[in-house]
Amino acid sequence: MKRNYKFTISYDGTRFFGWERQPGKDMTIQGKLESVLTRMAGLPEGERVDVIGSGRTDAGVHARAQTANAIFDTELSEDEIQAYMNQYLPEDISVNEVRVCSDRFHSRYNALGKTYRYTCWYGASKPVFDRKYVTVLENQPDAEKMREAAQYLIGTHDFKSFCGNSKMKKSTVRCVDAINIETSGNYIRLYFHGNGFLQNMVRILTGTLLEVGYGNIAPQEVKEILEACDRQKAGPTAPPEGLCLMKVDY
Amino acid sequence: MKRNYKFTISYDGTRFFGWERQPGKDMTIQGKLESVLTRMAGLPEGERVDVIGSGRTDAGVHARAQTANAIFDTELSEDEIQAYMNQYLPEDISVNEVRVCSDRFHSRYNALGKTYRYTCWYGASKPVFDRKYVTVLENQPDAEKMREAAQYLIGTHDFKSFCGNSKMKKSTVRCVDAINIETSGNYIRLYFHGNGFLQNMVRILTGTLLEVGYGNIAPQEVKEILEACDRQKAGPTAPPEGLCLMKVDY
Repeated sequence: MKRNYKFTISYDGTRFFGWERQPGKDMTIQGKLESVLTRMAGLPEGERVDVIGSGRTDAGVHARAQTANAIFDTELSEDEIQAYMNQYLPEDISVNEVRVCSDRFHSRYNALGKTYRYTCWYGASKPVFDRKYVTVLENQPDAEKMREAAQYLIGTHDFKSFCGNSKMKKSTVRCVDAINIETSGNYIRLYFHGNGFLQNMVRILTGTLLEVGYGNIAPQEVKEILEACDRQKAGPTAPPEGLCLMKVDY
Repeated sequence: MKRNYKFTISYDGTRFFGWERQPGKDMTIQGKLESVLTRMAGLPEGERVDVIGSGRTDAGVHARAQTANAIFDTELSEDEIQAYMNQYLPEDISVNEVRVCSDRFHSRYNALGKTYRYTCWYGASKPVFDRKYVTVLENQPDAEKMREAAQYLIGTHDFKSFCGNSKMKKSTVRCVDAINIETSGNYIRLYFHGNGFLQNMVRILTGTLLEVGYGNIAPQEVKEILEACDRQKAGPTAPPEGLCLMKVDY
């Protein structure tokens, strides 16, 4: 009997072309999950277990708790499915939980909110052990200014200025209810929570806040950037390696 | 004027054939440091800045604070030397501090003690983000038994049973004054402090304590293994990736 399974997944996105399956590209998270599940389910040639993620992550972006679901038939238990997947998935993808869920559960449509973390590092040495998971900054930004600027972004707004897809036809209105900027040693970590994020949105928000931190944009200018609904007004897209999807709320 | 410089260095040992320079092997920590310093000091062809480490680390072993020293002439300040080295060293080696030190300082002869940490991980998921820095165990060992066994190892003993070099001609007597075994979530971390460690000693101690944790060796048998002065009696050499040199005392 076919069942709907919910997965909680971690991955180091460094080697991957992002979440989404792409023709001719072997290294995608969705593609890897689908090929392992298709083999596990023993589907005939030409059929595939479709894996639905809570959202796509860009090439090079990491996840500590991405959520996905897939419908298939197996005699294996939840724990056995997890063991099978962890055995055959590469070392940079881990299945942390497998649960049978309601037939109606859809990891994208049912997602109520997401937490992303963007990790920056600066200093005279080098972040040897987490170098794949941080963005190295040339200088120390002013976190207090960044926090001031972040307040203009909180709430329900049209985030078109922070959308990486210039051809986006659907609504670019999102609600961001928290941006917390934490400093610790040589690290600055930006936590974003919202009901959803546009393509590259967290990276463009981060790139813009860093410009504020460097003094290139005044905190109150961020309000104007938001209102302009123009990607050209915002800061650069921060690199993918500092970004990590931390949690999806249902 | 030639000065003696003391360096504090971190490295991810994954890609390296260990600390020690070896003919025909480009990827050694000492070799990388020497080639950058030799270039920085502008030495003529055929000359080299010699870098002395506090000790050799094996291939694949990491360090958070290895100490080294080298004598050379430069007009650069300590901070400038650090910046130069971090620019030209690969991303998996970081110079965390550079200090002019006494001409008589020798990072190996003057080392009074060392702290090593061995990190193990077990569980149904996978340690995606620190997979290069942990040893994955098949099962959860009994940490309490390992702590009991560790007590037999504390003190000044002939550690010949735990020496990886069967042709060792010098003394195999060392003083290990602390072995702390900490558990946290899916991690078991073994901290070793002593006045010095033989080749592979921390890895053989760990491999033996893990056998105790699995119930294959009784805690009190470790006393017999120690007294046997026979490498064959001890457990296997635990893999290098879990090991990290944390600190060198002077």
